[in-house]
Amino acid sequence: MSQQLNAFFAAVSDPTRRAVVERLASGSATVSELAAPHPIALPTFMRHLKVLEDSGIVRSVKKGRVRTCHIEAEPLIAAQGWLAWQREIWEGRLDRLEALALQVDAADKGETDVT
Amino acid sequence: MSQQLNAFFAAVSDPTRRAVVERLASGSATVSELAAPHPIALPTFMRHLKVLEDSGIVRSVKKGRVRTCHIEAEPLIAAQGWLAWQREIWEGRLDRLEALALQVDAADKGETDVT
Repeated sequence: MSQQLNAFFAAVSDPTRRAVVERLASGSATVSELAAPHPIALPTFMRHLKVLEDSGIVRSVKKGRVRTCHIEAEPLIAAQGWLAWQREIWEGRLDRLEALALQVDAADKGETDVT
Repeated sequence: MSQQLNAFFAAVSDPTRRAVVERLASGSATVSELAAPHPIALPTFMRHLKVLEDSGIVRSVKKGRVRTCHIEAEPLIAAQGWLAWQREIWEGRLDRLEALALQVDAADKGETDVT
């Protein structure tokens, strides 16, 4: 799980690789189709694709001379789950701080009323 | 925005740095408190902390000799937003594929009924 998150987050820390994920989210595509919008050398693009495949978020199938890629949702869902979990803990803490602040306010007001 | 995502995803692609984010999600902590659970040299730990600060997810304040760190939610929310967006596109496509499959099924059934 931790290894998968390492690989997934490293994979999507590059804008070219994120663009490939964005493209594949809306449907499978061949390597040529994926490479076309990127003004970089094909071997460089292939290295990006390899990082995505190694991280498990992209899978590809070769049929004759054409390699078609698709997205695997599981690593994406796991990464989103980790982020959502951090946010929940963090927002839960804010809620508790707010409740505490209200208590302190109420106590202060109580004191002011008495004096 | 893209730069922020690059830095955020690279920052959380390391398990030590993710552990720091997990710890800070539940409350501020001093550098010593953050470093304590990690069996690595302090300079190595400080380099991890610097990556987290550079990515904007961790901020720190020095008071006397004690540096206290806290989490900044904004980069985390942006990253979660990007993942949620990919997932939405991807799941929307699955829904459309399913609808299409049902149509094809219905058409097949129609043909079978006729012949």
